[in-house]
Amino acid sequence: MIPVQPERFLKDLHDLRQFGAAGVGKGVVRPAYSEADIAARQWLAGRMQAAGLQPQFDPVGNLFGIAGETSLLMGSHSDSQPEGGWLDGALGVVAGLEVARAAQEAGGPPVSVVSFQDEEGRWGVTTGSTVWRGKLSLDEADRLEDHGGLSFAEARARMADLAGDWVPADRFTGFVEAHIEQGPWLEKTGEKVGVVEAIVGIRDMRITFAGQQNHAGTTPMHLRRDAFQGLAEFNRRINARFAEIVTPATVWTIGHVALTPSASSIVPGKAVFSMQWRDGAAERLEKMEKIIRDTAAEVAAERDLGLDFGTMLGLDPVQMDDGLQAALAAAAEEVCPGKWRRMPSGALHDASNVSNLMPVAMLFVPSIGGISHDFAEDTAEDDLVAGLKVLAGAVARLQ
Amino acid sequence: MIPVQPERFLKDLHDLRQFGAAGVGKGVVRPAYSEADIAARQWLAGRMQAAGLQPQFDPVGNLFGIAGETSLLMGSHSDSQPEGGWLDGALGVVAGLEVARAAQEAGGPPVSVVSFQDEEGRWGVTTGSTVWRGKLSLDEADRLEDHGGLSFAEARARMADLAGDWVPADRFTGFVEAHIEQGPWLEKTGEKVGVVEAIVGIRDMRITFAGQQNHAGTTPMHLRRDAFQGLAEFNRRINARFAEIVTPATVWTIGHVALTPSASSIVPGKAVFSMQWRDGAAERLEKMEKIIRDTAAEVAAERDLGLDFGTMLGLDPVQMDDGLQAALAAAAEEVCPGKWRRMPSGALHDASNVSNLMPVAMLFVPSIGGISHDFAEDTAEDDLVAGLKVLAGAVARLQ
Repeated sequence: MIPVQPERFLKDLHDLRQFGAAGVGKGVVRPAYSEADIAARQWLAGRMQAAGLQPQFDPVGNLFGIAGETSLLMGSHSDSQPEGGWLDGALGVVAGLEVARAAQEAGGPPVSVVSFQDEEGRWGVTTGSTVWRGKLSLDEADRLEDHGGLSFAEARARMADLAGDWVPADRFTGFVEAHIEQGPWLEKTGEKVGVVEAIVGIRDMRITFAGQQNHAGTTPMHLRRDAFQGLAEFNRRINARFAEIVTPATVWTIGHVALTPSASSIVPGKAVFSMQWRDGAAERLEKMEKIIRDTAAEVAAERDLGLDFGTMLGLDPVQMDDGLQAALAAAAEEVCPGKWRRMPSGALHDASNVSNLMPVAMLFVPSIGGISHDFAEDTAEDDLVAGLKVLAGAVARLQ
Repeated sequence: MIPVQPERFLKDLHDLRQFGAAGVGKGVVRPAYSEADIAARQWLAGRMQAAGLQPQFDPVGNLFGIAGETSLLMGSHSDSQPEGGWLDGALGVVAGLEVARAAQEAGGPPVSVVSFQDEEGRWGVTTGSTVWRGKLSLDEADRLEDHGGLSFAEARARMADLAGDWVPADRFTGFVEAHIEQGPWLEKTGEKVGVVEAIVGIRDMRITFAGQQNHAGTTPMHLRRDAFQGLAEFNRRINARFAEIVTPATVWTIGHVALTPSASSIVPGKAVFSMQWRDGAAERLEKMEKIIRDTAAEVAAERDLGLDFGTMLGLDPVQMDDGLQAALAAAAEEVCPGKWRRMPSGALHDASNVSNLMPVAMLFVPSIGGISHDFAEDTAEDDLVAGLKVLAGAVARLQ
């Protein structure tokens, strides 16, 4: 057993929120490499040192607190969205810190902690862990610019006096990331924690139906080639066809729609729209892609519409490690018997990158109202503590 | 019989096209009060005079060519769209001129001709005939501005040296307007002319579905309040319900769609769209409105969406006069037996305004490819001539 101290954990969480505290409620403005972000990382380094861990910044500002020669790694990120909440990322870092500290106090096992840099993607997506895993070179990263034109090279120069060497991944036996769910499942079902089975894969494609722009008064219905009607019919058919192959966790979204010329008296000549779908199984993503392509072609043929598929962007699903999942599940059943579930992560996390280096697992706690990326983001205190206890229980089981 | 001369009619049409001839094919750029428009009206006044008619400009630049004390009035407009074709409006004016001229030559009956000003709506919609019928006062019209900020008062001052008094409507016994169809019906059916039964009424309304903007990865399908899905389902249901009450000539269009925030990774929180419908019967327009309002409310309730109806804009249908229609129909059957139809006009015309002052009727000739408001607008020469002959035959029958 690792004797975590909930009060100390909650105090650290609230203290970390003071860096960039803003907005209503428990809002935080702490984007990567901002003054608040750098100050928060320096404070975290001090807390790591005080917990008996060896703090080390790497060249991109990822902060590790290292225990022993080899150890489990826990953590997440401490940068925030431009207008973020106090728990997105911070929870995983501070929970990892408390487990590592309590483990040190109990004489083991060794647990290291990490706060990755720029998970929120000021320079892309999960920038710090992407460079650490080796998918993006430092040279490539340095050339990226944020929306204001600030290069990654300029930004990380702000932490040059703190930067040390890269931390080799092979000193870690696995990675466990705790995170708020950022969705409504756990709250709706009244469960305390979720053991993540997979981080879902994403496919995203722009589709264009090209019809014939025409006078909305003089063009009879049966002679129209209305691009919006094509989109609406495509939408209806994929909804019906997906229903036969999806799970309750599968999601798909038409989020962007642009009609041409988008005027009330003109039959739409063109409809450009986004089609995004996410699922934990690569095979299902492929089946959905086939339905999308076949259905769009079918609707285009029936309605004499031109059809164009843009480039498909995608990230493959990441399966969580069975052993780490089993430890989390056993601990969850002990801490909150019958009040936990296995579930996918619909959002991307640093764990996706780390999975290329070592076994990974994730634990979710409920998000009140499913809200995230918003000042209103929050989680009930006893859910935060339940999550901490499950993490500690899992680490003890991994010894 | 009124002995119209097709060659003379076609030459006048081609000569009129020289004022503002532009673009490819038979394109015309002759917006109201442009140099080309004023020059064209002066040329038309000369042709009227040469035909034995008394030309008279009124204060807004409507040009009448008057025959006798009382007479039938024929015509349309000679201003064009910013990028228009050679027949939209011009056909009705020049066909009227040829019938009036031939009637003069034959010793009667008296036929007057008109070219209304700004039918294409540089300062609104059918501006010249709207002022003439008394729906818009000259003071109100004078304050209107075009897209470039030019007031109607400034524009009509360009014709001040030509302007005479108003022409009293009670000297005309009826109005017959020939026009290109601007739609594909006649071409598709291979018919030469259409006898218009009614100018359809229009209803136009902006509708808003308000849902909940959410993360497209973490928000399960069954908990979404997706405004686009509301719009798509609304569209499906009204299509099905309209099918039970409409005629083949009824049209309806969702032409404008704006989603918020319109991003591929975000469930749409808001959908604002235009709903426009047109029909020749006011009663059907009302039935459609009820279906629209009921269906939107039903979809909003089922999907927990907010619903807002904007102001409904509308123009009532205008019925064509039975006697004038009968004369056109009898002449059509003589000129092109079995190759004509009765049909509604899906577009608005000067005849809508004139119908408040006297009996009106309209005759359509085919538009190649249904194209109008475009340099490519055209009609086969023998269809133009068939239309001329039907007009002449109808006028002869009205004696």
